[in-house]
Amino acid sequence: MVEITRNNFEDKFNEIASQLRSAVFIAVDNEFTGLLSDQDYKSSLFDSGSERYDKLRRNIEHFLVMEVGISAFQFVEDENKYVANTYTFYVFPRSFGSIETKFMCQASSLEFLYQHKFDFNKFVYEGVSYLNCQQEIKLRQELYEGSLFRHLERTISLDDEKLVQSGCSRVAEWCPSAVENDVLSLEYTTYCRGEKRLAYIIHKELRQRFHNIWTFPDTDKVSPNKVSQKQRDQFVDDTSLEDDMMNSLLGFSRIFNLLLELRKPIVGHNLLLDLMIMYNQFHKPLPSQFGVFKEKIHKLFPVVYDTKYLSFELRKLVRREDMWDTNVLSNLYYYFKNGRGKYIVLFSPLVELKERSNSAGSICTFSNFSTNCHFDKLYVDDVDHFHEAGWDSFCTGYCFIKMAHIFAHITCLFLLHSVMDGRLLSSRELLAAAYSRKNRVNLIRASVSHVCLDGPDPPSTRPKWLHVQTRGYIRPIDISKVAELFAKYGIVDVKPFSRYRALVAVGNHTSAKDILCDFYNHRELRVSWYRPLWHSPMLRIATWTTGLMCAYLLYRRR
Amino acid sequence: MVEITRNNFEDKFNEIASQLRSAVFIAVDNEFTGLLSDQDYKSSLFDSGSERYDKLRRNIEHFLVMEVGISAFQFVEDENKYVANTYTFYVFPRSFGSIETKFMCQASSLEFLYQHKFDFNKFVYEGVSYLNCQQEIKLRQELYEGSLFRHLERTISLDDEKLVQSGCSRVAEWCPSAVENDVLSLEYTTYCRGEKRLAYIIHKELRQRFHNIWTFPDTDKVSPNKVSQKQRDQFVDDTSLEDDMMNSLLGFSRIFNLLLELRKPIVGHNLLLDLMIMYNQFHKPLPSQFGVFKEKIHKLFPVVYDTKYLSFELRKLVRREDMWDTNVLSNLYYYFKNGRGKYIVLFSPLVELKERSNSAGSICTFSNFSTNCHFDKLYVDDVDHFHEAGWDSFCTGYCFIKMAHIFAHITCLFLLHSVMDGRLLSSRELLAAAYSRKNRVNLIRASVSHVCLDGPDPPSTRPKWLHVQTRGYIRPIDISKVAELFAKYGIVDVKPFSRYRALVAVGNHTSAKDILCDFYNHRELRVSWYRPLWHSPMLRIATWTTGLMCAYLLYRRR
Repeated sequence: MVEITRNNFEDKFNEIASQLRSAVFIAVDNEFTGLLSDQDYKSSLFDSGSERYDKLRRNIEHFLVMEVGISAFQFVEDENKYVANTYTFYVFPRSFGSIETKFMCQASSLEFLYQHKFDFNKFVYEGVSYLNCQQEIKLRQELYEGSLFRHLERTISLDDEKLVQSGCSRVAEWCPSAVENDVLSLEYTTYCRGEKRLAYIIHKELRQRFHNIWTFPDTDKVSPNKVSQKQRDQFVDDTSLEDDMMNSLLGFSRIFNLLLELRKPIVGHNLLLDLMIMYNQFHKPLPSQFGVFKEKIHKLFPVVYDTKYLSFELRKLVRREDMWDTNVLSNLYYYFKNGRGKYIVLFSPLVELKERSNSAGSICTFSNFSTNCHFDKLYVDDVDHFHEAGWDSFCTGYCFIKMAHIFAHITCLFLLHSVMDGRLLSSRELLAAAYSRKNRVNLIRASVSHVCLDGPDPPSTRPKWLHVQTRGYIRPIDISKVAELFAKYGIVDVKPFSRYRALVAVGNHTSAKDILCDFYNHRELRVSWYRPLWHSPMLRIATWTTGLMCAYLLYRRR
Repeated sequence: MVEITRNNFEDKFNEIASQLRSAVFIAVDNEFTGLLSDQDYKSSLFDSGSERYDKLRRNIEHFLVMEVGISAFQFVEDENKYVANTYTFYVFPRSFGSIETKFMCQASSLEFLYQHKFDFNKFVYEGVSYLNCQQEIKLRQELYEGSLFRHLERTISLDDEKLVQSGCSRVAEWCPSAVENDVLSLEYTTYCRGEKRLAYIIHKELRQRFHNIWTFPDTDKVSPNKVSQKQRDQFVDDTSLEDDMMNSLLGFSRIFNLLLELRKPIVGHNLLLDLMIMYNQFHKPLPSQFGVFKEKIHKLFPVVYDTKYLSFELRKLVRREDMWDTNVLSNLYYYFKNGRGKYIVLFSPLVELKERSNSAGSICTFSNFSTNCHFDKLYVDDVDHFHEAGWDSFCTGYCFIKMAHIFAHITCLFLLHSVMDGRLLSSRELLAAAYSRKNRVNLIRASVSHVCLDGPDPPSTRPKWLHVQTRGYIRPIDISKVAELFAKYGIVDVKPFSRYRALVAVGNHTSAKDILCDFYNHRELRVSWYRPLWHSPMLRIATWTTGLMCAYLLYRRR
C-alpha cells in the first residue's frame, strides 16, 4: 500500500500506470468531504433509481473526494494468487490563475473521518492536483495563449509578489557582470516556497523582464542563463515550462484518464455515489437526467461490479447458517478472511496486498491459505484501516474475488468438475462467473434494490405502499407520530399525501402485513394498501361531484 | 500566547474569563475557510457601504471561522505598560443530534493558510464546539425535553452503536452479581472513544435499560452504581448530565457571550468581515439590511476600533517622510516596533505579550523601550506568525496602542503638556484619544473609505464615475479591454452600462483626470465624466422621441 501525495506523484506515476495496465480488474474507493447537503435529499424507500440519482446529484454537487483508493489486482496463475498493488491518493483542488474551487464540507463527515484518523493536513498540504475536462480546456488556452500570466499578476498574494520580486532583484544584481553562458541558481526553497506554481511565475517574469537571459526549468531550482539574442530566439517558442505546469496541475486526472482509456473492470462497494462523484470531480458536471448519466458512465466504464450488490446475490445461494451478519465492507472482508466464508467452497485463490510503504517491498498475504503473512507494522490491526480509501479498495477487491469464486463454483457445474479434475480457475473464468451480474449497482433504502447501468432498472420488489388516514377527518395527520408508531416494524418511510392522509413505504413484506394486521382496528388511524386510482384526490373530487349531482337530480325529480 | 482546543478549554475557561473582565480593551482576529464564494461578489469601487455589506453577506453565508484570536490588554499604570493575554481558539462546528453544520471552503484560502502553517487537523480533531442562538435554543429543548435521545438513536454511526452496545453488555454482565452501592467503571477511552458525546449516549442508554442502577458522570469514566428504587427516584430529575453536555457544546459561544456581556472596546484590523462572520457564526443569521446590521452590531459591541481605518486617519497627521509603505497589519506592526513609528512621539507605552505556552509563564516584551525581551523559541521570527489569529490579534492591539498614543499627543496639546510635566497617559486618556474615531470601519476598494456603525456612512471622496462609449456605435464595448487599457492608471473598476457604453470607477482623482486627458482624442473610445441625468437611457429615449416628433410635425407642416 503506497500513499501518493504531490511529493511522490511524479516519481510513482509510471509504476502506477504499469500496474493499472497489467491489472485483471481495478478496485476503487473514495473518502468524501460530505454526503448529505440537505435533509430533503435523504434516502427514502419511495425513491426510484432516477429519483435517487437526482437526490444524490444535488447532494454531492459541492462535496469533494479527498482521498481516492485504487487497487490494481494482477493474477499469478501458477500460484492461484491475486496480488493487489494499492495506492491511496490524496487529492486537493489546487488553485492556479482562474482555476479556483469552492467546496462544501459536512461537519459530521469530517468527524467520522477523524475517528478513522484521516490526515486533513495531508489533504491540504500534499494533495495531488486535478482538473476536470472544462478546467483542462480553460487552462490549456490560458497557458498556451498567454492570457494566464496577465491574470496571475492580478491574483497572486502579497507574500508571493514579494518572493517574485526578490528573485528578480537577485537576477538584476547578477546580470550586468555575467558573461554569456553564465548560470545563476535560484533555489526553489528560497524563491518559490518549494512550489511549482511560484517557480512558473518567476520563470515567466524573468524571461519577460530580462532580454539577455533565458531560464531553464530544473528539479529544485530556477536557472537563468545569460544568452545572446540569437540563442534566446531559439528558445522563445519552447513550451516545456507550460507542458510541465499543465502536467503538474492535471495530476490525478492523468490517472483517472488512464482508467478511462484502459476500460478494465472497475469494482467498488456500494459505488453509485463513488461513480457519480468521480464523474463530477474528475470528468464533467453530472447530467441532469439519470438516463444520460447511465449512458455516459457506461461508455466510460463499460464493466462495473458492485460488491454490495453481489453480496445480496450471493445471499440467495448461501445457506442461512453460513450467512454474514451485515454486508458492510469490513464485515464482508472478515467473513471471507476469517469467518464462515472461508469454508463455502475450496480452492479459493490467495489474495495478497503488496506492501511497499517500506523500501523492501515486502508482500502481505491475507488469505484463507496464507502461510507467509508479513504484515507491515502499521497493518497489524486491520480494523483501524477501514475508511482509508486504499485499504477499503483492497478489501473490496478481496471480497470480489472471493464472491466471484463462489459464484463460479456454486452456479457452474462445469467449473466445479474442472476443479475436481485438479484444474484451478483462471482469472478469465473468475470474471466470467460474475459477468452476468455486471453493471448492477446497489441502492440503499430505495424502492428498487439496485440500478442497471447498461439497461432499464429492475421493477421494485418492495411491498406496495400503505395508505394511512386519520379516522373521521378530525385531526390533521402527524407524520412524525406515524413514523414513530411504525418504527418498530423495521425500516419505514412516511410522506404526507394530504392534510389527513400519508403514504408509507415499508422495507419488507412481512413488516407491511404486520402493520396492516396490527392497525386493523386502530382508534385514530385507518391503514390500507395504497391504491393510486382509488386514493387519488381527483377520484375523490369526481366521486363527490357525482354524488352531489345525483342528490340534486333526485331532489329535482321529487 | 495560549492555544485553546477542546482539550484545555474547560481548564482555561475561568482564567480567560478573568483576563477578559480585567481588560482595558480586547483585540480580535479570525482565520476563515474562504472569502469569495462568487466572482459577482468581488469588491468594487462602485460599492456603497450597503452594497458592500450585501456582497459580503452573500459571500460569507457558508464560510466559517476556523481560528479566533483574542487578546485581552491590561494596563499596568506604574510601569506605563500594556500586557496582552493572547488566546488562539480553534473552533469546529461539532455535530450532535439534530445539530449539523455544512460549510464552504475556498481552495485558495486553505492554500494561503497552509503557507502560514495552519493546522487543519487541529481544527477538525481539537476545535472547540460552539452554537449560535438558534442552535442553542433547539438543543436546549431537545436535551431537556428528551426528544434528542430518540433522534440520536436514529443517527449515530454503526461504530458508535457497537461501542454503546459493548458498554451495555459490560453492565449486563456485572449487574446481576452486584450488590447495592457497588460501582463499575467504564473508561472513556474504551467505551466512549474519549468523547463526551458518546459518554452522554451511554449514560442515557444505561439509565434507560437498567432500572436498578444510576450512572454518575466523571472526568474520564462512566460509573454505573447499583442503587435501590428509592435512591434512583431521587436522581431521576437530575439534569447535571444535560447541563454538562450543553456547556460542552456551547464551548466557544460562552466566550463570545462573555464578550457581549462585558461591552469592552473591541479592536480589529479591517474588521467588517470579522464582525459579520462572528455575528453569523456565533450569534444569529445576518440581517438582510445593512441598517439593521449596524443597529444590532452596535448594540452588541458599542465601541469598536478598526486599526486599518485609524492608520488612514493617522496618515493625515504624520509627515510624508515618516510614513509606512502599506498598512497591511505586519507592515504597521514593524513600523511601530522597529521602524520610524518608534520616533514619532516619546513615552510610548510598553506592550508585552504574556507567554504562557511554556509552564514558566515567561513574559515577552515587544516594545520601543524593551530591555528584557524573552522571546519564546517559537516566536523568535515574528514573520512566521502572521495569519495566526492569536498573533494577529496581539499585533492589532499593539498597533492600536501605538496609534492612540500618537493621536493623544499630536491632537491634544493639553496631554502633550501633561506629558511634559512628567505625567504619563492613563489607559483612559489613551482610549479617549481614539474615541472620536470609534465605530468607523474601513472598506477596501469601495466608493466610500469606511462605514459608520453608529450613524450614517460618510459621503464618497472618490472621483465621480467616468462614462465610456465606443465612437460611432460601430462595435459593442469590450469591458475587459477597457479594464486593460485603464489598468496602468491604478485601481480601476469597469461595469457595463449598455451595449456600447460602460461606467468606470477610478481609485483617485489624479488617475481619473489623467484618463480623461489621455483619452481625449482616442480613436475608438469617447471618455467623459458620467452625468447620471444626461447619460440616462430614459433621457436618450425622450430626446429621440422628441426629435422624431418635431421632424414629423415639420414634415406635416410642409
